[in-house]
Amino acid sequence: MRGNVRRPTIKDVAERAAVSLKTVSRVINDEPSVQARTRDRVQQAIAELGYQPDPSARSLRSAQPYALGLVYDNPNPYYVIAVQNGVLSVCRETGYGLQIHPCDSSSPNLAQELIGLVRYSRLAGLVLAPPMSERHALVEELVAHGVRLVRIVSAASDPQDGSACVFVDDRDAAYDITEHLIQLGHARIGFLWGGKSHGSSWERYKGYEDALRDYGIALDPELVVEGDYSFDDGFRGARRLLALPRPPTAIFGSNDEIAAGVLAAAKSSGLNVPYDLSIAGFEDSPFSKQSWPALTTAKQATEEIARHAARRLLQEIREQPARKPLANEGFSPELVVRGSTAPPRPR
Amino acid sequence: MRGNVRRPTIKDVAERAAVSLKTVSRVINDEPSVQARTRDRVQQAIAELGYQPDPSARSLRSAQPYALGLVYDNPNPYYVIAVQNGVLSVCRETGYGLQIHPCDSSSPNLAQELIGLVRYSRLAGLVLAPPMSERHALVEELVAHGVRLVRIVSAASDPQDGSACVFVDDRDAAYDITEHLIQLGHARIGFLWGGKSHGSSWERYKGYEDALRDYGIALDPELVVEGDYSFDDGFRGARRLLALPRPPTAIFGSNDEIAAGVLAAAKSSGLNVPYDLSIAGFEDSPFSKQSWPALTTAKQATEEIARHAARRLLQEIREQPARKPLANEGFSPELVVRGSTAPPRPR
Repeated sequence: MRGNVRRPTIKDVAERAAVSLKTVSRVINDEPSVQARTRDRVQQAIAELGYQPDPSARSLRSAQPYALGLVYDNPNPYYVIAVQNGVLSVCRETGYGLQIHPCDSSSPNLAQELIGLVRYSRLAGLVLAPPMSERHALVEELVAHGVRLVRIVSAASDPQDGSACVFVDDRDAAYDITEHLIQLGHARIGFLWGGKSHGSSWERYKGYEDALRDYGIALDPELVVEGDYSFDDGFRGARRLLALPRPPTAIFGSNDEIAAGVLAAAKSSGLNVPYDLSIAGFEDSPFSKQSWPALTTAKQATEEIARHAARRLLQEIREQPARKPLANEGFSPELVVRGSTAPPRPR
Repeated sequence: MRGNVRRPTIKDVAERAAVSLKTVSRVINDEPSVQARTRDRVQQAIAELGYQPDPSARSLRSAQPYALGLVYDNPNPYYVIAVQNGVLSVCRETGYGLQIHPCDSSSPNLAQELIGLVRYSRLAGLVLAPPMSERHALVEELVAHGVRLVRIVSAASDPQDGSACVFVDDRDAAYDITEHLIQLGHARIGFLWGGKSHGSSWERYKGYEDALRDYGIALDPELVVEGDYSFDDGFRGARRLLALPRPPTAIFGSNDEIAAGVLAAAKSSGLNVPYDLSIAGFEDSPFSKQSWPALTTAKQATEEIARHAARRLLQEIREQPARKPLANEGFSPELVVRGSTAPPRPR
């Protein structure tokens, strides 16, 4: 096994994919002029050969930055891994490394910290996950210091605030979940908030509110509980709702972690889900598929969203400043109905 | 918010922690001559100020590498995040960035890929997680190419094979789990394997085998099912065991993912866990605490293990080649008893 290792070259890739060197180079540089089928073939050859583009040969403004940075503050391992994998898949195709930088979104020194990160680790740019992506002052300060970045944000439409982003329509998906519960016959639907520092929490709440209003169901403030995107808050919030004189017949947890907490609370109270209580989450995490019963949720396509964010960042990095701003892409999570929701018991 | 950002300096840290500049510098360079209490105070000041050591000021062999690399091939998000967080905490203290590099452990080009990664991303060294850490030919090839590395491996004692590692005694912990089930009164205990490419799978199986032997219980090959470290294999394996003419009264899944699959299989068969079937996992994942009932498991301290691996790597990077080899550290996962195990029903 020891001895000289010959690194596969761009020529090896071209031969294996049966295309020209120029085509391989276009795929590596993520240029739009390549057909999807050809791009797939080249990417497969790259993967099979373990080819790594030599970053110093790329046409960047500086030959120095070899890595992108991913900045997040999220306790949810499923979300974090999905974002990492999405960004990584684009890094692979284009020869970048990926530095990860979990941080404390409430730190007063966050701007300094991230500017230092980019400078000392020589990062070409940053992917900002929520909630950092939603702090306008932070984003402005980074941009003012010349940091190239793309944000993943929760918004029903393109925020068009002059900074690159990928936006996710949480409101629409939360509306669909609430509508699904209403159409099953539920009128007392509890809502458990995610962390208020996350734009997605507000958007999901608005979707819940909108659906109730559209179906003529009065919002009962007693059924709405504040908390964070965590299992513990889901458990606590559900216990509180289930102890009400008129408890809800369904609970919508703002993410699957919360819904997992609701499920545990229901089981610890001896309730049979979904017959005694319907439960819905949001995210389509592995837990939502593996729990018993499996959870009704919204499929968020986090990996795909992150992939698009990384591509958008590379465009920003290569962009001539004079060119017109690029359009931002939007994603809509989709309702996934599973065993945790059913019609309420007749009274 | 905009304007000049003054980066906190080493002097700010020294003032806040009320220690000398020299002491701060010792902590940053991870020198052993600092008392634990003082080290804690300095690290707290570093965290509070958001101080980042300037890597170019560090006394490294080369001023170039600013990041460590973490190489893994594991579908388990909990494990991956815990390893990342452990390595990151050491990176933070010492001013390194962390590049993550999930890979395909079965790729024939893995050595080339990793040598290319280190060279083109200018990494100071690699933390190799299992199963890459357990491929001797791969490790030798990397070392022959001058790659500094540390491995996380599964072993009952220091492998002393000349390469730096942190070793985890999976066998001992698997013995404890099996013994716990035997002491509850179980004699028919199913065992579901993890992936055979992982040393930990073999070690856990040996622990199961040893405990049965020590307690005079004949190993019934019918009760042992091969598979991977996955929920699906846990589900399938459990279905197979539960369909036996004489099914087991307890099932030991080689990790919590597998045990989650066993739990789902038990529930889908209408079994009441733990009264109809006891289930144990391995890892102490968040799932193991959040499932209903919560899972008996072995607490693996993955983050702590990764932290020690990163410290060991930094020692390797700073080491004079002539000095005597450092000792490798070992960890023993601990039995955690929860609601998923109980005595078998009397027959």
